Amino acid sequence: MIDLKYDPNGLIPAVVQDVDSGEVLMVAWMNAEALQRTRASGEAHFWSRSRGELWHKGATSGNILKVRDLRVDCDGDTLLLRVQPAGPACHTGARSCFFRNLEV
Amino acid sequence: MIDLKYDPNGLIPAVVQDVDSGEVLMVAWMNAEALQRTRASGEAHFWSRSRGELWHKGATSGNILKVRDLRVDCDGDTLLLRVQPAGPACHTGARSCFFRNLEV
Repeated sequence: MIDLKYDPNGLIPAVVQDVDSGEVLMVAWMNAEALQRTRASGEAHFWSRSRGELWHKGATSGNILKVRDLRVDCDGDTLLLRVQPAGPACHTGARSCFFRNLEV
Repeated sequence: MIDLKYDPNGLIPAVVQDVDSGEVLMVAWMNAEALQRTRASGEAHFWSRSRGELWHKGATSGNILKVRDLRVDCDGDTLLLRVQPAGPACHTGARSCFFRNLEV
């Protein structure tokens, strides 16, 4: 049993990566219930901080994320979901939320 | 100019990905100064929440992260650093911090 460290709001960040292409698609937050539902269904669920509610990603858009692999980092405070996305992960319609560059 | 959204502690999460293999190596946090130093030096700097100090990744271990590409997500509250790592990213000696699986 791996002990997860949730933040003071009961949340843990989850990095979502395309299991086939390796592209990082998005980062969202989970609470314990979102994680439990993700594991029970095999589809990514998050906690929407802006709406203050559980969020089954793709429930309205159809762009669900099938979780193929679920990992936790060395200090137990971040998750990595390797997924097969049914469509664009970003609400803008982009495949990934990380479509903007900053100059290094 | 992209407006970044720092959290109430002045921090923004940064996902670190190997630019060549696509492997997600670690997630750490930056404040504005860590980001400025990262951009100025081309090497990843973070804010260590446990030590409460700026952290030039690899300054002691030698395992620096050369930043090849710096991205921001759609809502401006998460960074993605695509890097060339000089060695293992994890303090355990693992290449990636995400070496543990949870059952899906």
